[in-house]
Amino acid sequence: MKKLFLLIVAITVSLTSFGQQALFGGQTINSPEINPDNTVTFRFSAPKAISVKLTGDFLPTTKSTIKFGEMEMTMDAPGTVDLVEGENGIWEYTSGVLAPELYSYNFIVDGLTVKDPNNVYLIRDVASVTNVFLISGGTADLYRVQDVPHGTVARRWYDSPTLNMKRRVTIYTPAGYETSKEKYPVLYLLHGAGGDEEAWIALGRTSQILDNLIAQGKAKPMIVVMTNGNADQQAAPGETVEGFYKPAMMGGGNTTPVASFEASFKDVIKFVESNYRVINKKEGRAIAGLSMGGGHTYGISKLYENTFDYMGLFSAAVGMGDNSGDADKQLATQRDNGFKLYWIACGNSDFLYQSNLDYMKKLDGMKFPYTFCESDGGHIWRNWRIYLTEFVPMLFK
Amino acid sequence: MKKLFLLIVAITVSLTSFGQQALFGGQTINSPEINPDNTVTFRFSAPKAISVKLTGDFLPTTKSTIKFGEMEMTMDAPGTVDLVEGENGIWEYTSGVLAPELYSYNFIVDGLTVKDPNNVYLIRDVASVTNVFLISGGTADLYRVQDVPHGTVARRWYDSPTLNMKRRVTIYTPAGYETSKEKYPVLYLLHGAGGDEEAWIALGRTSQILDNLIAQGKAKPMIVVMTNGNADQQAAPGETVEGFYKPAMMGGGNTTPVASFEASFKDVIKFVESNYRVINKKEGRAIAGLSMGGGHTYGISKLYENTFDYMGLFSAAVGMGDNSGDADKQLATQRDNGFKLYWIACGNSDFLYQSNLDYMKKLDGMKFPYTFCESDGGHIWRNWRIYLTEFVPMLFK
Repeated sequence: MKKLFLLIVAITVSLTSFGQQALFGGQTINSPEINPDNTVTFRFSAPKAISVKLTGDFLPTTKSTIKFGEMEMTMDAPGTVDLVEGENGIWEYTSGVLAPELYSYNFIVDGLTVKDPNNVYLIRDVASVTNVFLISGGTADLYRVQDVPHGTVARRWYDSPTLNMKRRVTIYTPAGYETSKEKYPVLYLLHGAGGDEEAWIALGRTSQILDNLIAQGKAKPMIVVMTNGNADQQAAPGETVEGFYKPAMMGGGNTTPVASFEASFKDVIKFVESNYRVINKKEGRAIAGLSMGGGHTYGISKLYENTFDYMGLFSAAVGMGDNSGDADKQLATQRDNGFKLYWIACGNSDFLYQSNLDYMKKLDGMKFPYTFCESDGGHIWRNWRIYLTEFVPMLFK
Repeated sequence: MKKLFLLIVAITVSLTSFGQQALFGGQTINSPEINPDNTVTFRFSAPKAISVKLTGDFLPTTKSTIKFGEMEMTMDAPGTVDLVEGENGIWEYTSGVLAPELYSYNFIVDGLTVKDPNNVYLIRDVASVTNVFLISGGTADLYRVQDVPHGTVARRWYDSPTLNMKRRVTIYTPAGYETSKEKYPVLYLLHGAGGDEEAWIALGRTSQILDNLIAQGKAKPMIVVMTNGNADQQAAPGETVEGFYKPAMMGGGNTTPVASFEASFKDVIKFVESNYRVINKKEGRAIAGLSMGGGHTYGISKLYENTFDYMGLFSAAVGMGDNSGDADKQLATQRDNGFKLYWIACGNSDFLYQSNLDYMKKLDGMKFPYTFCESDGGHIWRNWRIYLTEFVPMLFK
């Protein structure tokens, strides 16, 4: 029986996948290997290569100029380092000590960007797929799967009469929701430009962060609703009738006026409140988003001006919202209706930092209450995960 | 405002991912391009490469010898073809006309296996990740996301006192389940060796197949429960406290006696029947699985000998189940209790074909009723997807 089992293993592997030599005594490369001191060793087998480099968001950045139509900007780009060839054509590089974080990287072999064949953990960000790894410790422990009760993550479809389509949504319900009789508060969590209903779950580690904060008693059990904010898109790439098309930042959902998603948000709330056991009152509703989703949070919370008690604007593109004559009137109404938290977070090297300062100046002028959390760093997921870990414990208390 | 939006797009892309040149007017490579005649053009930019090849499960196979400990077997391995270098270092290959199917492929650049950087659609199979694409038509239309009502796919955790752990499970509920008051039948769907609770959803296209068959009126609306059949594994790689470890066929869950998962199956049934609105009778229960999961189906359906009315053994490793003295007695009891369908499917070039024939000879001897569906081909996902499309319409009628 054991022999039959081994046979099945052998044949299943060989028939259903490619490049499985590693499983049969050939290569047994461990990459990335996270060492006890939190240095990380990367290995890549390329006996014929002339050069093997590594690029990743943990390496010192270099200046890079990006042209975008008429615009030209100099900005930080991920740096690269050389791997050194060792025995058997296996190249290797060991990083310095890395701070706890979820990191991304790729190899560059003779100029060609390739993924690490020994690391099956990949995350898509718009049209790019990169390998990821996690250094434990500190806040990053919240991004790990830990031995705590786990919530449910469901991909569902809801009806949006406003946009005249069925739309996909990712919903986290906390551990115990299904067997409880309690009503739960809801956090609506919105992605940035180029993202979709998969962004917060994949790059944002939302389910791990919520599982861990709830288990530690630092956050109230809550439902998290992760929408697709691209108003002409039904769902994430690959999840619609368009099939496996090539995602892009431009075109598609991202050129649709921001306002149309905001106008359709009532459909999301209606769906959630008629399908889940929720506290369907202002005190049980929070909304937050990053970048474009921060703009959506600004726009939606003033448009539905007496609906949310908690707002989180993470590196928000507040200028993207509806800036028509009604905007200030809506903001004033939102202020007069009152709320518990209007939390603005932005990195001090974020390109939206100044526009967030300007926005707060405007809020000051209106005596619109808010809390500002200034962090280091720029317009990056590292910050957005941290903001989520800081925002969630303040909710529904 | 438009300008700010473009700026956000530009900066978000550049800071959150690598190799984004394609988005900024550099490469605009379309690969794979599915042509109107169902030939497929693959393109790869590698100006410095000496050779670019393609390997994929749509290419003619070659003979390959695999050594596995003492065993040595000659078997079919995926073939390779050469791409031809064109202008600007872009290599290209156009396939012959491909039959409708979900296909996998990789490039091989100067001997190095690399993924297609222009195709973000990847599926993990054990320790390998490959690019995929879909040719529409025929049965493969059932694998496409179509404009039909979509069910919900949830990743949940259940308690298994038998195995003394919380375990992850993937559950499909059909469109309308949440708002209906009806009770639904349940199909328990089990993966093969090296797989986990993600296998049927990712490689098996279960949610698309069910959505489409139900919408066409060919299948009854049903719940599909996709378990993790590795008895010492809580969840798929990356979804446990072990973090982002390197998956392997050997070791870990796969060396655990098959029987222990079978013994724990009562925990799965209990979880499903106390958490979902289901028909908790034999007539509302089906169980099916591929390879090791076919062995599990054999084992579980005879161990719980009056529980399931429908069994599906897809390329089943029936020899892997419990073959102790009780096995035949259990089978006889299962036969005497009666059931509606015992469906055995196997490809005639499957390495388990003969052992399935032997098993059926045994069933004949016992006057144990079954239906045999013989297909072409071997021990591959292509067959298992087809078997699912054939099995599901026979259930709960």
